[in-house]
Formats: sequence, C-alpha cells, structure tokens
Amino acid sequence: MASNRGVAYMGPGKVEVQSIDFPKLALGSRKCDHGVILKIVSTNICGSDQHMVRGRTTAPLGLILGHEITGEVIEAGRDVEFVKAGDLVSVPFNVACGRCRNCKEGKTGICLHVNPSRAGAAYGYVDMGGWVGGQAEFVMVPYADFNLLRLPDKARAMAKIKDLTLLSDIIPTGFHGAVSAGVAPGSIVYVAGAGPVGLACAACCQLLGAACVIVGDMIPERLAQARSFGCEVIDLRKDVTLAEQIEQIVGIPEVECAVDCVGFEARGHGKEAGVEQPATVLNSLMSVTQAGGKVGIPGLYVTDDPGGVDQAAKTGNLSIRIGLGWAKSHVFTTGQCPVLRYHRQLMHAILYEKFHPAKAVNVTVISLDQAPQGYQDFDKGAAKKFVIDPHKMVA
Amino acid sequence: MASNRGVAYMGPGKVEVQSIDFPKLALGSRKCDHGVILKIVSTNICGSDQHMVRGRTTAPLGLILGHEITGEVIEAGRDVEFVKAGDLVSVPFNVACGRCRNCKEGKTGICLHVNPSRAGAAYGYVDMGGWVGGQAEFVMVPYADFNLLRLPDKARAMAKIKDLTLLSDIIPTGFHGAVSAGVAPGSIVYVAGAGPVGLACAACCQLLGAACVIVGDMIPERLAQARSFGCEVIDLRKDVTLAEQIEQIVGIPEVECAVDCVGFEARGHGKEAGVEQPATVLNSLMSVTQAGGKVGIPGLYVTDDPGGVDQAAKTGNLSIRIGLGWAKSHVFTTGQCPVLRYHRQLMHAILYEKFHPAKAVNVTVISLDQAPQGYQDFDKGAAKKFVIDPHKMVA
Amino acid sequence: MASNRGVAYMGPGKVEVQSIDFPKLALGSRKCDHGVILKIVSTNICGSDQHMVRGRTTAPLGLILGHEITGEVIEAGRDVEFVKAGDLVSVPFNVACGRCRNCKEGKTGICLHVNPSRAGAAYGYVDMGGWVGGQAEFVMVPYADFNLLRLPDKARAMAKIKDLTLLSDIIPTGFHGAVSAGVAPGSIVYVAGAGPVGLACAACCQLLGAACVIVGDMIPERLAQARSFGCEVIDLRKDVTLAEQIEQIVGIPEVECAVDCVGFEARGHGKEAGVEQPATVLNSLMSVTQAGGKVGIPGLYVTDDPGGVDQAAKTGNLSIRIGLGWAKSHVFTTGQCPVLRYHRQLMHAILYEKFHPAKAVNVTVISLDQAPQGYQDFDKGAAKKFVIDPHKMVA
Amino acid sequence: MASNRGVAYMGPGKVEVQSIDFPKLALGSRKCDHGVILKIVSTNICGSDQHMVRGRTTAPLGLILGHEITGEVIEAGRDVEFVKAGDLVSVPFNVACGRCRNCKEGKTGICLHVNPSRAGAAYGYVDMGGWVGGQAEFVMVPYADFNLLRLPDKARAMAKIKDLTLLSDIIPTGFHGAVSAGVAPGSIVYVAGAGPVGLACAACCQLLGAACVIVGDMIPERLAQARSFGCEVIDLRKDVTLAEQIEQIVGIPEVECAVDCVGFEARGHGKEAGVEQPATVLNSLMSVTQAGGKVGIPGLYVTDDPGGVDQAAKTGNLSIRIGLGWAKSHVFTTGQCPVLRYHRQLMHAILYEKFHPAKAVNVTVISLDQAPQGYQDFDKGAAKKFVIDPHKMVA
Repeated sequence: MASNRGVAYMGPGKVEVQSIDFPKLALGSRKCDHGVILKIVSTNICGSDQHMVRGRTTAPLGLILGHEITGEVIEAGRDVEFVKAGDLVSVPFNVACGRCRNCKEGKTGICLHVNPSRAGAAYGYVDMGGWVGGQAEFVMVPYADFNLLRLPDKARAMAKIKDLTLLSDIIPTGFHGAVSAGVAPGSIVYVAGAGPVGLACAACCQLLGAACVIVGDMIPERLAQARSFGCEVIDLRKDVTLAEQIEQIVGIPEVECAVDCVGFEARGHGKEAGVEQPATVLNSLMSVTQAGGKVGIPGLYVTDDPGGVDQAAKTGNLSIRIGLGWAKSHVFTTGQCPVLRYHRQLMHAILYEKFHPAKAVNVTVISLDQAPQGYQDFDKGAAKKFVIDPHKMVA
Repeated sequence: MASNRGVAYMGPGKVEVQSIDFPKLALGSRKCDHGVILKIVSTNICGSDQHMVRGRTTAPLGLILGHEITGEVIEAGRDVEFVKAGDLVSVPFNVACGRCRNCKEGKTGICLHVNPSRAGAAYGYVDMGGWVGGQAEFVMVPYADFNLLRLPDKARAMAKIKDLTLLSDIIPTGFHGAVSAGVAPGSIVYVAGAGPVGLACAACCQLLGAACVIVGDMIPERLAQARSFGCEVIDLRKDVTLAEQIEQIVGIPEVECAVDCVGFEARGHGKEAGVEQPATVLNSLMSVTQAGGKVGIPGLYVTDDPGGVDQAAKTGNLSIRIGLGWAKSHVFTTGQCPVLRYHRQLMHAILYEKFHPAKAVNVTVISLDQAPQGYQDFDKGAAKKFVIDPHKMVA
Repeated sequence: MASNRGVAYMGPGKVEVQSIDFPKLALGSRKCDHGVILKIVSTNICGSDQHMVRGRTTAPLGLILGHEITGEVIEAGRDVEFVKAGDLVSVPFNVACGRCRNCKEGKTGICLHVNPSRAGAAYGYVDMGGWVGGQAEFVMVPYADFNLLRLPDKARAMAKIKDLTLLSDIIPTGFHGAVSAGVAPGSIVYVAGAGPVGLACAACCQLLGAACVIVGDMIPERLAQARSFGCEVIDLRKDVTLAEQIEQIVGIPEVECAVDCVGFEARGHGKEAGVEQPATVLNSLMSVTQAGGKVGIPGLYVTDDPGGVDQAAKTGNLSIRIGLGWAKSHVFTTGQCPVLRYHRQLMHAILYEKFHPAKAVNVTVISLDQAPQGYQDFDKGAAKKFVIDPHKMVA
Repeated sequence: MASNRGVAYMGPGKVEVQSIDFPKLALGSRKCDHGVILKIVSTNICGSDQHMVRGRTTAPLGLILGHEITGEVIEAGRDVEFVKAGDLVSVPFNVACGRCRNCKEGKTGICLHVNPSRAGAAYGYVDMGGWVGGQAEFVMVPYADFNLLRLPDKARAMAKIKDLTLLSDIIPTGFHGAVSAGVAPGSIVYVAGAGPVGLACAACCQLLGAACVIVGDMIPERLAQARSFGCEVIDLRKDVTLAEQIEQIVGIPEVECAVDCVGFEARGHGKEAGVEQPATVLNSLMSVTQAGGKVGIPGLYVTDDPGGVDQAAKTGNLSIRIGLGWAKSHVFTTGQCPVLRYHRQLMHAILYEKFHPAKAVNVTVISLDQAPQGYQDFDKGAAKKFVIDPHKMVA
C-alpha cells in the first residue's frame, strides 16, 4: 500500500507517470491531522493543467499534476470527526481551511490559510500552495471535514461515477460561470468555448432552465459535442461576426447572458483564427451581451504569463474595451469557482437523474499510464474529458 | 363587434354566461386612455375563482369572473405607445399602474393606484378593485404599455397557445412559490396540492433544476397527473404521516423547500381527510421542511371568510405552529405573485421548447358556453386546467 | 486556576452562584480537542435566560446559565491552529461545528453536529445541546478556529469592551432582525420591544441607515433609553392604537419594516396591557407594516411552553392573522441569529467608533456575585444590560 | 412665462447662457403627453458635463447642458395622472419610459425606448437621446408619472433643498457605486476621487454604515473637504504607493471595497501625477482591494474619446490588469446609476435628518448667469458642488 505513482510535469509538452511518495498527513513541516489519505477512484485532466504543460506558467519540473479528484478514504487524521475510512468522497479542487474569514463566507476559492503567497490554493498547481496533485494512486486532502463531499450511497454513486467525478471542478466551475452571468429560467446565453468547461457550463445553463444555450468554438468536433445535447452552436472559424451568427439563431444580435470559458489563451475569430488575442473573448462578449447583462468569467486570466503575446500580456494586462462594457452597464465576475458552494446540490441533480454531465462533456476513461497520451490528445482539441482510473475501479 | 358575453357569478354554486357590456376605455368614471380593448383568445378558470363560486367570499351577484387572459389588441387608447392593434398579448392577472412605488420596485401584486380599498388588484375578483373580468369575449386592460407582454411572433405563439395561456397566472404563480421557497438546481421539494397551481409549481420546480419534486394531494387523478411528468407523489388520504411518506421517497423525513399551493380551504390528512383545517398545510410544511428551509405560500389566505370553520378563521386568524417554524429558522413568503416579474422569461422557456406546462396541468379547451360545466367539473377535482376559447381561435 | 464558579438555575425565580467544575476540552464523552478554555472577561445576562428563570421552559435544576461570552484563551486544544493562548475573543452564542452543510452555508444557528435533539445549539441553554454556560469564571468553547472572533488589538479592544461584549449575541441578533426586515438606508422601521435586544436592534437600524426608528414598549424607563439615542418611541400602555401612534410620528399609519424583539411572552397593549397574548406582537406588526414589507422575528417562539396561556400555546401554536399578512405580501423571517455571519463587520463598526451599542442598551457592569440581583432587576424591567465581570477585568 | 434661458455648450472650454425655446410636451416629432413642464428650482453642474466642455466628446455646438434637475410642475400632459401642477419634484438624470423590459426590471439607466442609438438616455448630454438639458429656467420631463419623485411637503423640502437637489444624480450615483462595491455596516472602503461624486459616494458609504471611508485625490482642497465630514484621506501626489498609504490608516495594505469615482480622464499618481493614464484608477483598485472584494465603477468610461491618449483609448480600449483582478476573484460593476432605484429612500434619509450630503459636497449656490464661471472654477478643481438657482428660489 505504501507505493504511489503520479503524473509529473517534466517541461513544456512533457508529462510522465512516475513513482512518487505515498502521501502523509502533512505538507512539508505543516501537520495535517485534519486531513485524510484517499485511494483515488477517478481523477480528471483539466484544461487549466494544459496551461502548465504548454509552458505558459512558471510550474517547476517534477510538479505532480491533478486537482480533479474523487476517492475513497483509507486513513483519517486524528482531528477528523465526520469523515471515515471507507467513505467515497468528492474533493473540491480548491484547498480550503474552513476557518478563515473567506471560508466562513463561502469564498473557498480564496482561502487565507492554505497558500503563503496569495489567497486561494489547489492541488497540483503552480503558485497554488504546493499541495501535491491527485493524478496519482493516492493523495492527501487537508481539512477533510470541511472540504469533502460524501457521496451518500457507494453502489449508487459508483454507478454514476463518470458524472460524479466532474463535481470536483468543471461542473461547479461551469455552474459558477452560468450563475455569475445571471443564467436563470428562460435565459438566452452565449458560452464562449466548447472545451470541457464550456460544455459543462452549457449543460449547467440547461439545468438552470435557460431557454437557448449557444456555444461558440473553432473545433468542429467540440461543436458537434455541444450540439449532441441540445445546444445551438457557432463556428468561429467562419468569417461572419459573432453578432450576426447569434442573430441567425435568436433573431437579434444579442444574448442576455454570456460566459467566458476560454481565458487568456484565446485566439482570434474569422480571418484572424489561430492568432493569439488574449482579450478577444472578453471584448466579443461585451459586444454581444445586451445592456444590463452580466458576464461570468470562469476562464483563467493570469498575473504572469511567460508566453504572453506582448509585454503587457506577460503581466496579465490586456486591452479591454471597458468603454463599451460601461455603456452597457455590464457586470463582470472573475475568479476561481468556490466548488463547495455548489457541489452538494449538483450531486443531488446527478443522483436523481436530472442532470447528465458526463455525456455532455464526453467523459473518456483512461488508465494512469495513458495520462501522457490523454494530455496530448486533449491539447490537439479532442472533444473528450479524460478521466484517469488509477485503480481500475471505474472501467 | 359591439356585443359581448361573459361568465357571471350568480350565487354559491352558480355561474352563468350572460350578455354584458362591450368594454370601454374606462372603469366607471376613471378614464383609461392608457388601456386597450382585447379580443380574448383564451381565458382560464382558476382555483381562486372557485373560492368565490363556492360562496367563501363576499363577491356580489353579477360579478364577471376571469383574471387569466390572453388576447389580441383591437383598440388602443390614445396614451398607449408600444402596443398596437393586432398584437397578441398575455395579460398579468394583477392590474398594475407601473407608476407607483410598488410597481417601480417590481411589486405589481400590490400596486397602490388600482384599488381604492387596499394594495393590489385583479380582473374579475371580489375586493380587487372592480376591474371587469375576462371570462368573456372582450375585455379592457388598463396601463397596457406597462402590463402587457407581447407574444413576439403570432403564428409561432398560436402554435403554443395552450402553454402561453398559462402565463397570465398559474405558471408565474407556481414559479413565484418555487422561487420563494428557494428552489434551485438540485433541490428536493415538496409541493402541497396537485390542483393546477400545484402542478404548475411542480413543473416550474423542474424548470428551476430541482432534483426531486414531490407533490401531495388527496385526489388520485391529480396525483396521476403529477406522476405523468416525472413528479414523485404522496397520497394524503393514507393514514401515514407526510414525513414518513417523504422518507420513503428520499430516505429522510424532510425536504429542503416547500410550497403551499392549497391555501385556506385546506382539509385534514389521513383519518381527518375531508375535514376543513385551514392551517393544516402550513403546519405540515413546517414539520417536513428542514431547518433553514423556506416556505413559499402562493396558496391564498384571506382576511374575511364567511364560511370559516370558527370565529377566528372567519377573520383570517389561524392556529399556526410558529414555535416550530421559529426553531427551524424558517422563512415564509406570502402574497399574490407579481406576474410581470416572471412572465417574459417563462415565455422564452415555452417558445424555445424548454418547458411544457400545458401538458403538466392538462389543459382542456372548452367553449365559453361550457364554462359553467367547467366550473362544476373543476370543483369536483378534475385533473384538468380549463381554458375557455370564446372565439374558437384555440381549438 | 483549577477552580471555577458559575451562575446556576435552581428553579423558577432562583439563580445561585455556585462552585462548578473547571472546564475540560470535552462535552461528556465527546472529545473537543478543537476547543479552547477561556478565562471569561465579560458575560452578559440575556432576556432569553429569563424565559428559563421564569420557569417558562423545561430547564433542569443546576443548569449553568450564560451564552454571551467574551474571554481570553488560556488553553487551546491540539487541533486548534489559528487561535492561541492570550488571544482575546468574542464567542458567538451559537455553538457550531463549521463542518456540516448548514455551517458551510453560514447558517450557524442551525448547525447539525452539536445538538443530538435538533438543529442548533447554544451555551447554557435548555434543549440546546448541553454545552456548559458561560456566566462563570471559565468556560470551554468547541471548534474554536471556526467559532471565535479574535479582537485584533487587546488594549484597543479592552478600551471598548462594554461595546464588544455585545457581539456575542444581542448586537448581531438585533442586526439580523433588522436585515431580515429589509432595513436599509432611508427605511422607516418599527421595533417592537425596548429590552436589550430591541434597543440593540434599534441601534443597528440606525447603523444600517434607517431614516426613522420607532420603538414600542410599555416600560417608561426603556422608552426613555430608546429616546436617548435618537429613536422615536411609542408607549403601548396608552389606549391609542399602534397605527395611530405611528401616524402621529410619520404621517401615515404604516412603517416599511418591522422587527419583533419580544417573542412569545408578549403582553396586550392599551386596555389589555399586562395580559399575556403571545401572538399580539406578530399580529400588530402585520397590521402596521406596509404591503410588500418584511417582518424580522428575532424574538423567541418556542415549541414547548409549560406556562402557555392555553393548550395550543403550550405547544407553540398561536392564533396568527395570516390572512392579513398574505393580503399584504409580507415575508416573515424567524429563528436564531447566525452570529458568525455578522460579528466581524460589527466589530469593525465598533472599533472605528462608528457604532456605540453599549450606550444604546445601557451596559451596566456587575460582579459574578451580583448576578442573582441582576436577574431580579432585569426581570422587573430595568432599562439596563447587565454585564458580568467575573475577573474584575472590565470595571 | 414663454421665455426661457439655458446654458449652452459652444465649443471646448466655452459655455454661454442663451435664450432658448420654452419647452413643449414633445421631443421633435415625438409627442410627450406623458410629460410635464417644470419651472426649475435648482440644477447642478456635474463632472460629466465637464467631459463635454473639455472637448472630450463629440457634443454638438449649441447643446443645452444639464441633467441634475429639481423643479416645480407648471403644466402636466393629458396622460399624466399622479403628478399635478404645483408639485415639487426631483428628476432622475436618466430619461426612462417605465414601459420597456429594462425599466420594468428597475434598470432605468438603460431604458430601451428613449434613445434611438443605444440603451439609456439623459437630459442635455451627447449621444443620450437628444433630450433638452435642464441648466435653464424651464425644462420638459417625459414619462412624468414614472420618472418623478414628489417631494412630499413643499416647505419642509425647500428648507432642505440644497440636499434634495443632489437626489437627481450624484447622491444616487455615489450610493450605487457604494452598493455595487458591497459597502455595508463595518466596511473598510476606498473611494477613488474627491470630486462631487467621490464625496457623495463617501457620504453614502457612511450612511451605509461603513466603519472606515478612505478617499484619495490629488487636490488638497478636495481632500480637506473629505476630511471635514469624517473621511480618512490619501494624497495621491505623494510618492508613496496607494497600498502603503492605506496600510498607514488601517494597518493592512488592503480595503474590503473600492469605488472608482474618477473614470476615463484619470491621471497618474506620485511621480506620474498629472499624466493622463486612463486605466490607472481601475488597476490601482485591483491592487488594493482584497481578494473577494467588489469594485463599483460609477466613474464614466466612454466608447469614443477624441482626446484619448492613444489609438486604443480613443475607442474606449484600456490596458487593464485583468489577470490580477481574476486572481483575486473581483467583481466589477459598471454603468449609469439607475437613480429611480434609490432616490425615494435617500430622500427619506435627508428629510429625517439622517444624512447631510450638501455639507459633504460643499453645495455652492450660483445664479444662472454665473454658470459659465461655475464651469471654470469647477474645472480648476474647486472643492464645491455648484447648484444653479435660475429663479432665485434657493438662495
């Protein structure tokens, strides 16, 4: 039991499965008697991992990746009261203490006690507190009573594990984007990006009762995936403006709500397709969102981007058409999703068969050893959400 | 064109179709140049009409019934700017001026300018301002620019008229109850009552993303109707407590949210089935709603009830177990639904085929002359929502 | 150090200061390594303690009273990370785990892990989980990292200790009532009751920007106290209706917001002054609150009242004019205040000299041995908030 | 009575008092029988007028300025029901119809029926619908029943007219900025800019219960004005970072809430003082607002700025450090304040003497003929809010 293997970042474009330490109830010298050790049941590759793997961050070599974790508790620290060995649990990607001002307000994405360098932490991510990632066989989760969501009936949960594995990040993240954009029954929404978060967001918009969900992307397979569960789609490779394409669908060149599920590695549309234009999504959302609308921004924007298109972009400064947003009284909500605020109710929606996100994002199960291949395929734009199954419990 | 016919209340248990005046742009001596005359396309019988017809109010003989109105504008007053002859429109049951403090805050259910005796008015209802009811061929609607919702494409709208006719009252009313109860994605909800408002509420809970919607009633046909669109049901005739029946469905004897779609003519459960117990629904909702839950109360409670079970009930005083609600930190939201707050977005949900309320409430179209029969059948508990089609435009 | 003394309930009308056990980091067999031992700096007598002392509950003899606690940490359990010996802290009266669904949502008044018999717990209170009260020299506080509010600068805090001591209950409770009633800048508010919670609520209404705060009571000293910090007052002994008295002050017989700071031991007004009428406050608030208004109900209503005026009242069933509330679209918010949601920001308001609650409620410091006298004086209606100073650190 | 005079924009740096047409109940060919003619009691010069007067917009010569209007009704159109000749009224600067989707939702700053070229309109402003400005003796206000706030008691109102005149714009605008930034009891707030809107915002933060309000500017007189009513101040001319100056005041280099009351004509701080840097305020607010904080942006950002510092700025594109905002989960709220949402309650706060904004912004009354001088003095940074008194009713 004391062996462990995990997916390591070994330089731009390179990830490897390596033998790694079996987790302890500690982070360096910091004791974590409030933590548990999990045998990982499923752990997903995330688009934000790709930013590191593409070399767009300062992630150190050897960093163990993975922040989308579902597992079974095999050991609980002495201070853990309400989670027990044997429990099947979903782990929010945000590491949170449950004891600081922000956690008490439900802002677990910006916990003050888990990252010495800034508010907020995550597993297996650069600058996010040094917590070991979970694309592995085993992982340690601190503040287990606070963070973990127990999946109530193991057999019933395992039958839906491909859906439930998405509770650790992309479903709540997509939901947070939708909620921040004001999506509600009857909404007409545009979701920028049909990667896993975009598709998850589109599915969440439907769960929230949206009347019409439009998804834009430049990869035909991803658009087909969006269409498969009832979304309208916009092919951004076409040399037709986004507004015109929206008008063809809904009769007017505007939507009520918009969500940016792309972030800073955005590329130009139409004739400029393929050229990195980091503010293009934000600016296009201002142009197509009606006055009074809200823009949810779960897509990641960073403070430091060694590969930025210009000097400003390298420090996270983008040329944003704020004058237009202001004229339309837009509201912009940014930041990491506080998973804990949403995961319990989304679990209910899955368990009661109201909501089928695995189909929406095309969950594809792979072994731990297939992770490097998964990263490559995902980077090429596969319309798949790769779920690693390190103990062959899912497949 | 100058003739008109309408459904009149003629005493307990009696309604008649009568020749009535063709509407004018006035209410008595009050000029309504801001109003329009509608040719009525559809007009529904409502459970709250039954309170009058059963003699449980002080409604005067001759009152023309009907507050659920959809129609075509045939004449617009000189002060109407944005609605034109030919427009197909949904009429909120609340009469509202759009100019008082409450209307400006979206509280159109308690408009201050349309009823000399209290806040709030409606068409064809006792104590609600004297506005002539719309179970008729033609009706006048004041403050047309403010009140009316234009159905954007007439052909497309007429194809869904059985759904859209419900926008004037029961769909927004059910929605308001659900929203007031905090229903959101993943919620586990109990809806008391499977009459049209209860069924509409249940359908709205689904639209809002509820994971599990449980509906309770004592009429098997109504429960079957609830089951037909995916609700769980509870038969209150059984001598098993509500809590136990809930536990059989969800594993615990509590729900997260509850909605009272019954109101003051409630009857006892189990062994006391059939006995009027006006507070029984409210009290049972406190017992089965979890601590911290909210209770939406769209069901009507009145200030004066000549048929009340005791002296207190005759003036709207009921024996409520507030001590229990308090111990559970419940929040109670009462009052008429402000239809205008919700109808546009619910129309979207219908037009984009996201939402099918006509099926949920079993819309049944009848002619104006069949209205008296409709009242009788409805009073006996038919699991139907009767929609009057005075000009044979629906059927 | 291992000695301790506390205020015990010894039967109706009787409290005694007794030698009691020095606190341990445990509650019976339940270990509390997440807890701390406090040397109590100040601990207040609360109106809700009086319900027990008057014999209106099933409190057992020997119960140690006191849930309004401010203290200095003298020992921290091994699982406590962010609170240290020497810290000066305010203790929310709600005992909460910080790990259950409700705590994660900020609903610490109905924590699910601290009271086997219902949601929610408190120190020194009947049916509230058995946690030992803090009208004593020392007390144990569980889940210290989550519950405690550190007062940031000890000297600065001790200089304002008479204000800060109110953060454990009545200031947040009054604030919660005001917020629940929708009080905001410009509001015209009626606060029922000028006991300490009513006065605290009135002061909070002012902090929230209310334009006009009206306080009603039957004790002249309490009304004078309310007047002392700028409230308008209504003497309920007068044989003039509440509505008429409100009209004399604001020109119309209605207020925008209302707060019930009385609860179930309410007494009649005017000619019926002195007669217990448990629903009279709730019913009068419905009559004077404008349509669309909200009613905050921090005043306690109980599920079991051995001294209730009739059989219904003994089980918390009161005759409430719900028909009137419904006609006015009122919203009613009940329950214990979740102190943790409010105490940090209210502390800021005190420390920056924006807010002076000690003056508003007339804080009066007494020794531990004077506690029995304090209970008696308070029961007679003294316009004072008694603060016990067990270690002579305040005075 | 049929004569009229008003303040006209006659080119960069030039305003003149001219004879102008007496208002009609029309805007060009659009009839406004829903409107009223006002005899103007007071009308204020606004910072946003200065953008036009400085030549930073495309305002046409001859445009009559003025959108901050208080007046007495002298004639009401035939469709006006609830406002009468003789009424003293405050006019929200936003022209709004009260009948479109946005107005019904309270979003009167982006009304859809009053400006053919975009959502939202105002009196006397470029690109805002062509409504004649109110720095004049008389003006026409459309949709009077909806827009106007009646000041209830004329004598009482005239006694406070210097405060009440601010209800048409800067008090609600400052309040909206504060509310958008999440200001509430106990907040620690930074307000960028000590012009009239900044000072109004600071006063509103105090009304909302903020514990500590810090105002930054580069003009000593304006900072002195802020200090005069209890604000902390920061002199941005100093070569000390904003964060450091905040730390000196509150002990940490961060605030909880921030409001941008400057807008696009912002200038650099410290060594770069005086150099136009249009995004500097937004970027500095991101750096000093704590993670999870909100930024209110009532300061104007435009879509077209002929005098912009570079090509991007000329079309409203600014270099914004969105990466930092995202890392801190900031929320940004932009746009015109919907005055109607706030003015009634703020009027209460003034009438009940809870709130004294005229002192905070240093209201200075001038005659209509002194308006050109007022513009000049204001442009030089006078710490005054100029209120024009065209009929000598104020002074």
